[in-house]
This record gives sequence, C-alpha cells and structure tokens, in this order.
Amino acid sequence: MTGSPCLTEAATRWAAAVRDGSRSPVREIERVLARIEALNGATKAYISVDGAGARAAAEGGGLGPLAGVPYAAKDLFETRSLPTTGGSRVLEGWRSGRDAAAIERLSAAGAVLLGKANLHEFAHGTTGENARFGTPANPWDPTRMAGGSSSGSAVAVAQGLACFALGSDTGGSTRVPAALCGLIGFKPSFGRISREGMIPYCWSLDHVGIIAGSVGDTALVLQALAGHDPRDGGSADLPVPDYGQGRLRGVRGLRVGVPERHFFEHADPEILAATRRCLARLVERGAELRPVSLPDLSHARTVSLLLQMPEVLSYHRRYLPEKLGLYGEDVRSGLAFGQFILAEHYVRAQRMVEQYRRESEAAMADVDVVITPTCPVVAPALGTATVETEGLEEPVGNALTRFTAFFNMTGAPALSVPSGFHSSGLPMGVQIVGHPFDEATVLAVGQAIEEQQGSLFDPADDCRDGAAI
Amino acid sequence: MTGSPCLTEAATRWAAAVRDGSRSPVREIERVLARIEALNGATKAYISVDGAGARAAAEGGGLGPLAGVPYAAKDLFETRSLPTTGGSRVLEGWRSGRDAAAIERLSAAGAVLLGKANLHEFAHGTTGENARFGTPANPWDPTRMAGGSSSGSAVAVAQGLACFALGSDTGGSTRVPAALCGLIGFKPSFGRISREGMIPYCWSLDHVGIIAGSVGDTALVLQALAGHDPRDGGSADLPVPDYGQGRLRGVRGLRVGVPERHFFEHADPEILAATRRCLARLVERGAELRPVSLPDLSHARTVSLLLQMPEVLSYHRRYLPEKLGLYGEDVRSGLAFGQFILAEHYVRAQRMVEQYRRESEAAMADVDVVITPTCPVVAPALGTATVETEGLEEPVGNALTRFTAFFNMTGAPALSVPSGFHSSGLPMGVQIVGHPFDEATVLAVGQAIEEQQGSLFDPADDCRDGAAI
Repeated sequence: MTGSPCLTEAATRWAAAVRDGSRSPVREIERVLARIEALNGATKAYISVDGAGARAAAEGGGLGPLAGVPYAAKDLFETRSLPTTGGSRVLEGWRSGRDAAAIERLSAAGAVLLGKANLHEFAHGTTGENARFGTPANPWDPTRMAGGSSSGSAVAVAQGLACFALGSDTGGSTRVPAALCGLIGFKPSFGRISREGMIPYCWSLDHVGIIAGSVGDTALVLQALAGHDPRDGGSADLPVPDYGQGRLRGVRGLRVGVPERHFFEHADPEILAATRRCLARLVERGAELRPVSLPDLSHARTVSLLLQMPEVLSYHRRYLPEKLGLYGEDVRSGLAFGQFILAEHYVRAQRMVEQYRRESEAAMADVDVVITPTCPVVAPALGTATVETEGLEEPVGNALTRFTAFFNMTGAPALSVPSGFHSSGLPMGVQIVGHPFDEATVLAVGQAIEEQQGSLFDPADDCRDGAAI
Repeated sequence: MTGSPCLTEAATRWAAAVRDGSRSPVREIERVLARIEALNGATKAYISVDGAGARAAAEGGGLGPLAGVPYAAKDLFETRSLPTTGGSRVLEGWRSGRDAAAIERLSAAGAVLLGKANLHEFAHGTTGENARFGTPANPWDPTRMAGGSSSGSAVAVAQGLACFALGSDTGGSTRVPAALCGLIGFKPSFGRISREGMIPYCWSLDHVGIIAGSVGDTALVLQALAGHDPRDGGSADLPVPDYGQGRLRGVRGLRVGVPERHFFEHADPEILAATRRCLARLVERGAELRPVSLPDLSHARTVSLLLQMPEVLSYHRRYLPEKLGLYGEDVRSGLAFGQFILAEHYVRAQRMVEQYRRESEAAMADVDVVITPTCPVVAPALGTATVETEGLEEPVGNALTRFTAFFNMTGAPALSVPSGFHSSGLPMGVQIVGHPFDEATVLAVGQAIEEQQGSLFDPADDCRDGAAI
C-alpha cells in the first residue's frame, strides 16, 4: 500500500483529454490496470478486475462525455463481462449475463469499467467488513474502517484505482464511506437513477450512489446515469435537468436550513465545528441560514428496519434452502429477524415513511437545502462494535448512519463533501440535503463548500505519474 | 319504490341551466330532496341526508362547472356537515369535522352534496349487503343485488336521487355496481384523484370512483376532481388534461385490444355476446381490433388479498381493542386473516404488482385501450353465496370482481359502460381499460359505445317532473 491515498486525475479532465486527442485512452487504462495489479492485494478494493474488457472498452469507447474514464462498480451491479458476487459466498461464480442499467448508461457515455468493487456482504452493513473478500482499510489509516457498504468503491477512488465508482445507498452506504475516506458521495433523489440489474437490499430505500473525487465529477457522472427506466418500479418519469458538469451556479441568495435538533447532537465536537465552519463559509458567499425543524426521528431507525428486514428476506428466500450456511453472521441474523415481522407492521412502517416525507417537505418549504454532518464520528477502528459520542453509546452501524438513513426514507438527494481533517488525521464530511429531484442545488452548495475547503488529497501525491506505486 | 329506476337529468345540462339562469338551483334541490324523502326508506340509498346544507350550498354555490348539481358521496368520504360511518356500527356518530379532498373539489366546482350513500361495511365486499343500514336493492329487480361496495352511490343515481355519486374502487367497487345497475362507473388512474379524507380500505389499491348516468357527465365530474394533492402519498404530480366535458373525440383509428384469455372465459354467454357487439360497433366507427396477451392472472386474486388484508388490519387496529364486536362477520374474518400474513409475503405481493404493471404496459404497447366485460354475471339474487358460470363455481364476490380487480393493481383507468340488457331484464356492462393517465381515450371509447347503445333508462320514466315519485 502507498504511504497515503492518492486520487487519479479528475474524470472531467480525463474525458476532455481523450476527446481532444491529447490522451490515448488505451495507454491510460493500462496505467490504471498496472496500479490495480500493484495495490489491490493490499487495498482489497476490487473483488474482480476485467483487464481485457477495460482495454477493449477504452479502444472502442467513442468520444462521449465520459470518454475513456475508468471506473469501478460495486459488486451488486450485474455485469455481462464479470461475475456478480454481492460480496458473498452465496453468489460466488454467478454470472447474470447482462449489464445493469447503470452500467449500460455509463458504457454509452464512454466510461470504462475496470472491475467490481468490494462491499459489505449484500450491502447489509456499514462497516465494510467482509470475511470472504477481505475488509478494505481506510486509506488514511489502515487500522480504521473505510465504511460501507460501498467500501471498495470508496477505497478504489481514494487510492487512485478508479476515477469514480458506482455505489448503492440504502441508509448511507455511499455517503458514509465517502465521508470516512475524504471523498464525495452522492445519493441522488429516489427514482432518479434506475436500479434495474442492481441486486436489491431493500427496494423501498435502495438508491444508486456515486463516489468521486470532486463535485464536478459527480455531476458529470450523474448526468450520464440519470433518467427514467420503466423496468425499475421506483424510477421517476421526469425530465432530467442539465447538471452543469462542473459549471454549477453559486450559492448567493440560497436559503440553507440548519436542523434544530437530532443532527447536531451526540456528535464529535470537531465534526460539529467543521460543519459550522462550512455554514459560515456559505454565509460569506451570500447564502442565508435558517433554522428548520425536521420530523421527530425517535422511531426512524425502527421504521427503516421494519422495511429492510422483510425486504431482504423476501429477496434472499430463494437461496435459503440450499445456501443459508454461506451467509455471514450479520446477514443471517437480519434474515432471521425478518421472518417474524408481520405485514401489518410493515404497512404501518410504510405509512410512517409517507408521513416523514410530508413532514420533511413541509419543514423544508422555506429553504433550498439542509446541512448536517454526514457522520457523527470519524472512521472507527477496525473491529469496533460500539462507539460512544458525547454520552451516547450505540452499535457502530447505528452511529455511522445516524445522520444519513433518514433521507433514504424521504428520497431526498443527499451529498457528502469533505469538511476538513480531524485532529486524528482522519477526514470528516458534511451532508447537503435538497428537495426531491433538485440535485442541481445540492451540487451547487457542495461545490461551494469544496472550493473553500480544497481537496483533502495532497497534490504532491499525484499518482498520474505512477510515482505512488 | 318506483316501478322502475329513473335517472335525474344529466349533470351537464343541469349545470348549464343553472349557469344560464334558466333554472333555480334551490328549487331543483328541493325537488330532489323531496324525492329522497319519498324513496330513501325503500331504496336505502342514503345513510344520511343534509337538507339544510344542500339548500345552503345551492343558494351560495356560484356558477362553476358543476353549478347546483346535486350528488351523493359514499359514506367513506369525510364531511364536515354530516357524520361519516363507513357503513359500520364502529364509526356510528363519528364526525371528522372536515371535508375530504374530493368533497372540497366538488364544492369548489359548485356541486351540491345531498348526503352520504350506503355501502358495503368499510368497502369490504362487493355484494353491497349491509346489516346495519340495510342493503340497497338493484333498481331493475328488487330481489337482486345492486353490487358494491358503492351500492348506495349506484342506487342513488339510478333512482334519480342524485345526478352523480362519489364511490371508491379497490377491486371494482365503483365499476361493479355501475354495471349491475345500468350506469357509468369510472375508476381513473391510480394517483389522479386525491384520496385524502376517504377512509382507506387498502392504500395500495384504493381509487376514488365516479358513478354517473352518462360518459359526458363522468368526464365533467372527473375534470373537477382530478389533480395533485401532496397529502395523498399516491397522488401523481402530473398536469391534468382537458377531458372534453362531453365533447370527446371519436374512435377512428384507435387500436382496441381484446384479451386472448381470462377475460372472455367463464362468463355469461349473453354478456360475452354484448361485449362482442360493442367491439363490432367500434370497428364500424373506424377502430381496429387487436389481440392482446395480458399477464397470467392465476395468482392475481391471492396477490390482491395479500395486500388488502394487512392494510385493512393496519388501519382498523386502532378500533379493535374496544370495538371488535361491532364489525360485521365478513370484515371480522378479513381482519383475522390479516394478522397472520407476514411482511415477507406482503413484500412479495408488492413485487408481483410491479411485475403486473410492467407486463400490462408491455402487453398494451400496441393498443390504445383494452375491452372486457365488466362482470361475468348479471346482478345475482340477494343472499347469493356462490355463483356458477360456464362450469366455474366461485364465491359471489370473486365472480363480481374477476374482471375488474386486476386493474386496481396496474393502476390503469377503467370505465364500465352499459352494453345492453340481458334476457333476464337486467343490465350488462362492458369495461374499457386505458394506459395510466390516459383517461381521455378511455372516455372517448366509452362515449362511442354509449352513443350506439343509448341509455338503458326509459325516457318515459323521466323523473324531472316528479311523476315517478
């Protein structure tokens, strides 16, 4: 492993160089493949790599908006060229024979799939621990978690093994690892990106997520991915805006909501201070802060679990008769829990979600976005079971998703952007939440914070020249 | 009771006369109130009547598109002026203190609420039998069922006790009584009309329905009711088309789908012949028939029940500790059934519904509408438990909804229009199903059939002059 993490060049510049002919896509892909070859054993970012497919795609990929840009896909996305494991022994060796909708769209835009990224088994957790494929370590401190469930996606981007990565996000699985690894993590609105061909964790809450090194790159990738797909029942039949691809508007006059409770409680004081600094900078740039009163979240975790557990069980039932023993302990206990939940209670949870949506919409009526910390803690040590933050002790998974999971229920777009470094040397993240289907404003606010903040990655470590290998 | 049913004048003409000043809305309302006074004891169409409120509304109702038009609302819709019983002892005497969204919209359009129509208890059945408030008889034969659950809504319109009526439709509860009583029954697309303030039977499948005497009236009422309402989670945020209010376009060039299986099986041969005559007439008017292969419906009833039973239980749980004994036997057995359904199976049923939607969309890709009989039988005798149709014996409720319930799962707009008289003297109905949110085409086809068919009601019985009382 390198001494410190090292982003590859931005997707935006990469594609521009391929398109203007100043860069050979094939040679660049070779360079990244060599880097993966050198570092994947230590980073455990990829479960499988498709060198031949990547070379072929780079050669024949055309000059689309993501021309030649190499990326990783969380191994929940079906791919024609590679097996899809879900990060589990249960599916080991399974090939679906087709590309997920998100993969198809990225191919059409010219992006080059390098391989399938590691994850928490079937996305069923946020620590990123994986007994079968190894646990990707935090790029800033190998004794710490990278976060999950899109652990490999974050580590691949942070270690310069991909320009961006596809993740999934059911309670924070894209935003949490991005925050813990110092990256951008984005869960667009529920319905904005088709989930067709992505192994579901929980249909009601699953989103496709994007992990990238900059907000501009995130917008570029979102533009390629967004759009209606009748095969995904949750997909919204709405026009896709122009996300600006890095030319996002500023924040002057924007009304930024600051939650009055819950989101600024029981969190690391340094993370809260960093979040407040981001707010202050937005005010300097012309935004206005307003208090918002989001719904009472006392039962939010219970409601979310009442949806998750039966949906997980409903999907995995097909494998249980023959493969129950191949699941990891945490997935097995979730499946066991799921079988005792009554439909009556599931229905009530769905009604609660609808109420949360309505109440959130009302609470946000007078603001353009809401800002919170992404996680109340920095990356916990590997093997941590519970964390204590300002008097609250809770299971580590609960802590990591405490500020993110609610927005999977409301379906609002939610972006995590680095907010600086903690005194421990680990990155911290700030979360920007918007109105459903208004990703553009969320990205604009994210970009304003990013511009003030700068990249957490040291330019001296630039891995373009291969020095970091 | 009159010797035969008798429609009031069309809503369209009624409103026009009020608007051009040739009719006194107050005097006309008095006339209808007198007719209700005379006939409600025998017909049992209304559970409660608000004479004072109707007079006040007629006086101050303005000149909207439904100016002065008297209507009945199924007693599932909350009303400020009258109690809302749900047709059950459980709610007897309950006043919600507010108007349902549909009532508000009709008031805004100038319509005059006469009272609350009888129904199958909590909409939990299609025979219309009601032990507490009496069972409205079929207007064409008092020994027969009116159908349900919107039994009183249909009988009120057929007996000249309202110009139109609000119903609800979860499996056919508007279309079935309309077909059995010789009326128009319409369930627009799922999401087109807000259900806010309508006591739910099953959120996933409930629709607001319209019962009227003509397709033109139905379009006029739909225009007033349609529109987004963020308070109803199922409400679609889509623009509302101009439904034409009786000036609907013809059917020339329309592609009419005829299902290859299921919908023309195990049905009364006279009903099938009448449906085929309607198809032939559409062809004469320039439509083209095409076979369509709708999804396999073997499990459709099970899927629908797996959604209904837990949702009913989830809603009614609040009343069970104190009021279980007040529910009728059929509702109680549904609630008992619901408590044993697991969330895992409910989730699977929801997935099946999504599959039905996709498959239906695919099956209808090359047609504008699909046509089926509304019910496989004419109105069964009161007290019937099972019916036999061409070798298939089944519970009467299953038979009545066999051709309608599927379209509550797909959310497609579905209209029932009279297709003629059976040799028994009872009316028959034909069902027109369209693409989601394309109510306009469905109404156009319905109007073409109606024009060829003519009203089933004898003009000699016209109750405008009060002769029928």
